[in-house]
Amino acid sequence: MPIKTGEQYEASLRAMKFKIYLQGELVENPVDHPIIRPSMNSVKMTYDLANDPQYEELMTATSHLTGEKINRFCHLHQSCDDLVKKVKMQRLLGQKTAACFQRCVGMDAINAADSVTFEMDRKFGTDYHKRFTNFLRRMQEEDWTVDGAMTDPKGDRSLPPHKQADPDLYVHVVERRKDGIVVCGAKAHQTGAVNSHWILVMPTIAMGKEDADYAVSFAAPADADGIFYIYGRQSCDTRKLEGGSIDVGNKQFGGHEALMVFDNVFIPWENVFMCGETEYSGLLVERFAGYHRQSYGGCKVGVGDVLIGATALAADYNGASKASHVKDKLIEMTHLNETLYSCGIACSSEGSPTASGTYLINLLLANVCKQNVTRFPYEIARLAEDIAGGLMVTMPSEHDLRHPEIGRVVEKYFCGVSSVPVEERMRILRLIENITLGTAAVGYRTESMHGAGSPQAQRIMIARQGGIEQKKSLAKDIAGIAHPSP
Amino acid sequence: MPIKTGEQYEASLRAMKFKIYLQGELVENPVDHPIIRPSMNSVKMTYDLANDPQYEELMTATSHLTGEKINRFCHLHQSCDDLVKKVKMQRLLGQKTAACFQRCVGMDAINAADSVTFEMDRKFGTDYHKRFTNFLRRMQEEDWTVDGAMTDPKGDRSLPPHKQADPDLYVHVVERRKDGIVVCGAKAHQTGAVNSHWILVMPTIAMGKEDADYAVSFAAPADADGIFYIYGRQSCDTRKLEGGSIDVGNKQFGGHEALMVFDNVFIPWENVFMCGETEYSGLLVERFAGYHRQSYGGCKVGVGDVLIGATALAADYNGASKASHVKDKLIEMTHLNETLYSCGIACSSEGSPTASGTYLINLLLANVCKQNVTRFPYEIARLAEDIAGGLMVTMPSEHDLRHPEIGRVVEKYFCGVSSVPVEERMRILRLIENITLGTAAVGYRTESMHGAGSPQAQRIMIARQGGIEQKKSLAKDIAGIAHPSP
Amino acid sequence: MPIKTGEQYEASLRAMKFKIYLQGELVENPVDHPIIRPSMNSVKMTYDLANDPQYEELMTATSHLTGEKINRFCHLHQSCDDLVKKVKMQRLLGQKTAACFQRCVGMDAINAADSVTFEMDRKFGTDYHKRFTNFLRRMQEEDWTVDGAMTDPKGDRSLPPHKQADPDLYVHVVERRKDGIVVCGAKAHQTGAVNSHWILVMPTIAMGKEDADYAVSFAAPADADGIFYIYGRQSCDTRKLEGGSIDVGNKQFGGHEALMVFDNVFIPWENVFMCGETEYSGLLVERFAGYHRQSYGGCKVGVGDVLIGATALAADYNGASKASHVKDKLIEMTHLNETLYSCGIACSSEGSPTASGTYLINLLLANVCKQNVTRFPYEIARLAEDIAGGLMVTMPSEHDLRHPEIGRVVEKYFCGVSSVPVEERMRILRLIENITLGTAAVGYRTESMHGAGSPQAQRIMIARQGGIEQKKSLAKDIAGIAHPSP
Amino acid sequence: MPIKTGEQYEASLRAMKFKIYLQGELVENPVDHPIIRPSMNSVKMTYDLANDPQYEELMTATSHLTGEKINRFCHLHQSCDDLVKKVKMQRLLGQKTAACFQRCVGMDAINAADSVTFEMDRKFGTDYHKRFTNFLRRMQEEDWTVDGAMTDPKGDRSLPPHKQADPDLYVHVVERRKDGIVVCGAKAHQTGAVNSHWILVMPTIAMGKEDADYAVSFAAPADADGIFYIYGRQSCDTRKLEGGSIDVGNKQFGGHEALMVFDNVFIPWENVFMCGETEYSGLLVERFAGYHRQSYGGCKVGVGDVLIGATALAADYNGASKASHVKDKLIEMTHLNETLYSCGIACSSEGSPTASGTYLINLLLANVCKQNVTRFPYEIARLAEDIAGGLMVTMPSEHDLRHPEIGRVVEKYFCGVSSVPVEERMRILRLIENITLGTAAVGYRTESMHGAGSPQAQRIMIARQGGIEQKKSLAKDIAGIAHPSP
Repeated sequence: MPIKTGEQYEASLRAMKFKIYLQGELVENPVDHPIIRPSMNSVKMTYDLANDPQYEELMTATSHLTGEKINRFCHLHQSCDDLVKKVKMQRLLGQKTAACFQRCVGMDAINAADSVTFEMDRKFGTDYHKRFTNFLRRMQEEDWTVDGAMTDPKGDRSLPPHKQADPDLYVHVVERRKDGIVVCGAKAHQTGAVNSHWILVMPTIAMGKEDADYAVSFAAPADADGIFYIYGRQSCDTRKLEGGSIDVGNKQFGGHEALMVFDNVFIPWENVFMCGETEYSGLLVERFAGYHRQSYGGCKVGVGDVLIGATALAADYNGASKASHVKDKLIEMTHLNETLYSCGIACSSEGSPTASGTYLINLLLANVCKQNVTRFPYEIARLAEDIAGGLMVTMPSEHDLRHPEIGRVVEKYFCGVSSVPVEERMRILRLIENITLGTAAVGYRTESMHGAGSPQAQRIMIARQGGIEQKKSLAKDIAGIAHPSP
Repeated sequence: MPIKTGEQYEASLRAMKFKIYLQGELVENPVDHPIIRPSMNSVKMTYDLANDPQYEELMTATSHLTGEKINRFCHLHQSCDDLVKKVKMQRLLGQKTAACFQRCVGMDAINAADSVTFEMDRKFGTDYHKRFTNFLRRMQEEDWTVDGAMTDPKGDRSLPPHKQADPDLYVHVVERRKDGIVVCGAKAHQTGAVNSHWILVMPTIAMGKEDADYAVSFAAPADADGIFYIYGRQSCDTRKLEGGSIDVGNKQFGGHEALMVFDNVFIPWENVFMCGETEYSGLLVERFAGYHRQSYGGCKVGVGDVLIGATALAADYNGASKASHVKDKLIEMTHLNETLYSCGIACSSEGSPTASGTYLINLLLANVCKQNVTRFPYEIARLAEDIAGGLMVTMPSEHDLRHPEIGRVVEKYFCGVSSVPVEERMRILRLIENITLGTAAVGYRTESMHGAGSPQAQRIMIARQGGIEQKKSLAKDIAGIAHPSP
Repeated sequence: MPIKTGEQYEASLRAMKFKIYLQGELVENPVDHPIIRPSMNSVKMTYDLANDPQYEELMTATSHLTGEKINRFCHLHQSCDDLVKKVKMQRLLGQKTAACFQRCVGMDAINAADSVTFEMDRKFGTDYHKRFTNFLRRMQEEDWTVDGAMTDPKGDRSLPPHKQADPDLYVHVVERRKDGIVVCGAKAHQTGAVNSHWILVMPTIAMGKEDADYAVSFAAPADADGIFYIYGRQSCDTRKLEGGSIDVGNKQFGGHEALMVFDNVFIPWENVFMCGETEYSGLLVERFAGYHRQSYGGCKVGVGDVLIGATALAADYNGASKASHVKDKLIEMTHLNETLYSCGIACSSEGSPTASGTYLINLLLANVCKQNVTRFPYEIARLAEDIAGGLMVTMPSEHDLRHPEIGRVVEKYFCGVSSVPVEERMRILRLIENITLGTAAVGYRTESMHGAGSPQAQRIMIARQGGIEQKKSLAKDIAGIAHPSP
Repeated sequence: MPIKTGEQYEASLRAMKFKIYLQGELVENPVDHPIIRPSMNSVKMTYDLANDPQYEELMTATSHLTGEKINRFCHLHQSCDDLVKKVKMQRLLGQKTAACFQRCVGMDAINAADSVTFEMDRKFGTDYHKRFTNFLRRMQEEDWTVDGAMTDPKGDRSLPPHKQADPDLYVHVVERRKDGIVVCGAKAHQTGAVNSHWILVMPTIAMGKEDADYAVSFAAPADADGIFYIYGRQSCDTRKLEGGSIDVGNKQFGGHEALMVFDNVFIPWENVFMCGETEYSGLLVERFAGYHRQSYGGCKVGVGDVLIGATALAADYNGASKASHVKDKLIEMTHLNETLYSCGIACSSEGSPTASGTYLINLLLANVCKQNVTRFPYEIARLAEDIAGGLMVTMPSEHDLRHPEIGRVVEKYFCGVSSVPVEERMRILRLIENITLGTAAVGYRTESMHGAGSPQAQRIMIARQGGIEQKKSLAKDIAGIAHPSP
């Protein structure tokens, strides 16, 4: 049964035994916890849409391992067309959730791990790729959500892993046994961690010989013994505890990040995909980051679509939609959003196969894509706040609207265009607040900035991939300067 | 006793009988309400610093009415030097509170009302200026905080006041009596409303003859009969109810906005400063907005100083302060912040006297100042988020840090540079979150956008004041096109 | 012999009888005129590279009419892959010429005319498509360079064609004869006009019934009776008359624009492709503009590559290439340039077939592409000027360098890094000047701004294609506002 | 006769014996050379306006040495008011010439030299300030135009002066005699050099002990024995040789830069103002650069005024002035231009006295001013090109317009709004071309970028002056982090 329904997904999560701390307390039932639940709903949407015939082409793919139809999130990209469809699927999900739907990290992790384990084996004669393929087959069969876990806490950033005061600041092997390894450490900022069935751990930087214990990649059940989580808090997170449906902005969907701690976790060899091959840690990071930078050319564009739509509605409700400056700002928002999309599409359609047969995006253009993502959502958000007006942050609460006496005053004075109920106006303004300042701003702003690597990381890759020497050669040809031609 | 202490200010507020709704409930004791209190502290700072000898020159002035030393917030600007000192005082207070300290609206309102009432009297033979001067004298003597209340709810923006379905969508006179007038309506987005002693109401747009009932300006005690408030909610406002000192970001200071409702409020004639003179409503708006656009060249710069400082500390704590891109981003933040300040200073030093003797800023440059304020704080905030890193929005809560077991895990894994306690790192990151996403973002982002008029309002003024015909004439001279020279 | 060599192209031009005015004089021999020659060399490059095996895949295609290998500039796009290769061919030619190579207008014109004539015939039962196909076959067989001529002078822009004081301000039919039509008027800004064999004229705007005489499309030999040209002057054009090779910046390549005047030109019916079908004039404009907006995502990127290379060399020669700000600016230039390329690729890979089978780009993304082209080359140029340094515009002339005495002084004082001859440094700085201020700035700046439609034209298309209603619907779903779902 | 007329200035130049090479030839009569003349006219305007009563307050000042009325260009700033008036004078001259009027470098040089020589004498007991004051007195009496000469060729930028392969790459003392010194070397990019009476040479960087021979400042007649010039070429410079008045864009005014070579020039001690005091070379650079960065907040704004006016006229002539996007772009141009002006005013009104009594601008804000000047004129130019339309670079030449036959065709087809003669439209478009691409672009673009120091130089100063430690302290106070308070 490779393609699960949303219901089956939710049920499978309930069967797991997560250990999660949230605001200083151990969570009994994460699936129904009001702060966590919306993020689970977002992941669930990746299952629901895969069962909707109208989205079949984007949401599903044919497994190259089994020939069966699988959820695209479990798929290895077999062509540029697959890469393009990935981006379109992500835009669709961004449109349907207006949030981070979290499942991309696992998809990007398996695609990176596939080609890197293949190339490692070719070099070292190891059997990582076979192990990985076995893991992947189970993932496809069970339609798992996998958390691709890369970012270590890193401590003092000027020191390599083995020089850190506390060795646990990077995940590392503390014991090598006959049947497997034991690991310690933590992964920070883990998107969707507690909505995942399994974790696929990867190293976080290029390493040297002395960091061998840190060059480790493996898979583990997300609720394995010794793993626990501390849930990150988001702007406005506790509005979800208030019980209403307006002030939260997006009642149904959200995202989350958590610290994932490994306290002497045992990993059997069959689930170990790298162990000491420091030469390949950098490549794995580069590939994963490349895929994930492509992802943002889809998901953030989808959220942007919702924000643009909400802003256009806010203008309608304010009675300002015919002002030429309002129209022009909506055009600019659309322009910026479609520029991001263009970058997502371009790095995909310019992809090429790796040695394992899995397709890789064009790395230069994927980094260009992400670099734009660190800028344009901020400008789109600024324009949204411009059009929305100050009411977005000075409106009274839902409790005031529901108040027997004061509710009438709220309705009287916060009326815009008379044909639109005040509640609808408040809902749209709270949605804009949610994306620009609230829980979803974590995804739309901060994750756009730092997810898949901070801006400077892309600039380093752009410098490396930009072909500056070839460009100098072109310029010499035009300027009439003799040189060996390229 | 013209200069009150902060203690006296707080005591005076306690003596008032505000009717305030907050999240659907009537507030018993606003001064001590944890959501309101920080905003009161910000206003209190305007009293405390006026009593600090090192800030005497900026914080106090000599009354042109009495010759006594008064708080500058109660002062009419007697020179360009006064205008410049106003901006410097505002930068200082932004630095000391990292928030909106709310008292500027009253200062800007009295300066606008002074010259406009003077000019009205000169035209109509009325005695508004005398009444206003009496009010001002009391304000100076009592060292009142005054809420300058301008923005009406406005309903359908394509219609003038008298054409609105509900006449209360603009504040208006419902009855003219021998002893005074009765008014109805509301003012929205009222900054610092419930920390004020008095309200100075002004009309919100240029009006035509048929809007005569809406061309009304008056003063009233902030707790007068018939006035009540609905408190606006801010991003992360309820963190202030959690009892800690870290997650709030800025424990001590904040700002607020509220809806101020006038339910048949009686105003004696002595407190009425405009009543039907529609020709002057536009001028009053233009002057108040001009002064308030200048203000942002001070207060937002002060908050920017704190944000830049916090960002530099975050870089230190992350161990990243020596990276050239980090240094460059801090320079860019400083550059943008000082550009705002330059605009604030320039429109002040280029001021000129009005007919009443009170000095007015250069209106073109004040609008240019505010237009930049609708842009640069957003970019400064974006750069702050870049340097701060993702941890700002994925960190666990203060409860986790304080947790007997989990606290040690938090301290272990969120350590940056080892010499800095994790708690300090969290404090700084929460402060950046506060200004870019949290309660203070309302002041630093949305108020920068919409306070004192939305961006398009400044563009209209820039077009009007930009002297385009004179510029065409210059171009013709250079191009050798004959025309009557200027 | 469908694929001509550059030599054959040049010879074919020599056989033509152009009537060209340049700086008030009739040009005897345009091919060898020093001001025109470099632009001819650029077009010639489109022939030379088509004969170079290493570029065969990009530069040539298989005719869908004859199955023969043809120059891609004569090809109708049969797939998205063709659209992508078009962009890559254009980037290549931009790299090889650092100039506008002019032949794209014809390629874009035939692709637009094909589908529009097909659709007209389907509606009206006319035989335009057959005529057009005959013309196309000859074009492919002869490997013609065709000038796609669209922009009319337009006179008073607030009036439609038939209301203009002078009817000739738009090209129009002045006589309908049995054997053909007679036309009058002019086309302005005609890129590469006097390097073309034929002209393909198209209307320039959407029209109404009364503009029927203006809804005219046809082909004519570029040197037909009654056609003459007035050559446009470019910044620094006369440096080409000075005889040197340094100060011109780009000795070999350039572009040109001219006014093309039709003085009662007879066109036989077989070359008429639209005559009165006003409903289709707008569609033809939209398609041609769409293709041409795509083109800029290739050609300007290629010129950008040269400019980036030249700037990197300037930094090397100045001894500044290791400064972190210099490296960062080169990264930014690369980032912007690749963002343009991404837009060019994306609108191509997202193309789709028209009714005639010819592939059309994605119109939304093509407009987004061009809109970015109106911005980023300006910023790339600004950064180039930053790194190049002031010497670019304060250097002495080539005559000074060649001067027996003064030459030594020039070499002494304009030496940068000692290993690089001063002449090479001057050559690179003059190349940067050429692209940012000189003859090539017309192509890299102004044409980027206005070619294929000024910025506002793209914004109108973005508004029309942006799907704002669907976005509103997405936002309502998220905000919990009931509405008929999409 | 301290205030010369323009006529007297021109006559005084004619009496000088300049040795100037221009395009490989020695110039006979610089004053009447068509390429040089417009730049002389710009300087002349600084004399003419000083004699115009309506500009007396801006253009003249009272000498603090003699009490006589002098041209402000010869004045030491005695107050903030003087600093502000300087900026206003510069804006005025930018408006009147649309070019660089060149005389500011001397004004900025004397103001910097005054305080630095004063402070050197106080430290070393030298008498430089007395010598300098004698020079200044003569300058004021004779109303000289002085070229403040700072920038050395610099050769390999990674090496200090004394390590350069060729010692002449920095101006230096080659002989110390009883009666004076002998110097060799060159100054590059010398603005207005051949329109000056005297040269005031300053070192160009901070230096170490071993660079003592290079720490030299002195004054010399601009036509002294051993000094010669190589004139820099500008974009479109030779249009001035064509004899017309349209294609040059700005017939009357321009600017120039030249290489100034010192070939064993003797300087008597009375004209030497620094000789070996390496500790003070950096300070002199910082002060001169600071004043000159302020200057750009005036002069470039004035040129911007002309460009905005020309652009507005172009819109009028195109019949496009009512389009909302055109109006909005003109507002944006105005906004950016006034932001520059605000920075110019702010750094002036925030000035303060140096030890000698001469007023210095606020250095932080002056650097912020210049940093904006490296950006905004580029964006203003881009918007001008947007509104002007492509015709600006595809128009035929003036010769075509004057041609007996073709002239009528030009007039027919390049007509915009029918009420405006084609010639006027061409004049305005050529003026815009002149400022954005032509001779004046050297001043409006490149000089804005590199004059008074390239962008990175300002960033270093902003970092140094930005008070980052104090900002950190503010942030700690707000975040509740204990530290010694400031």
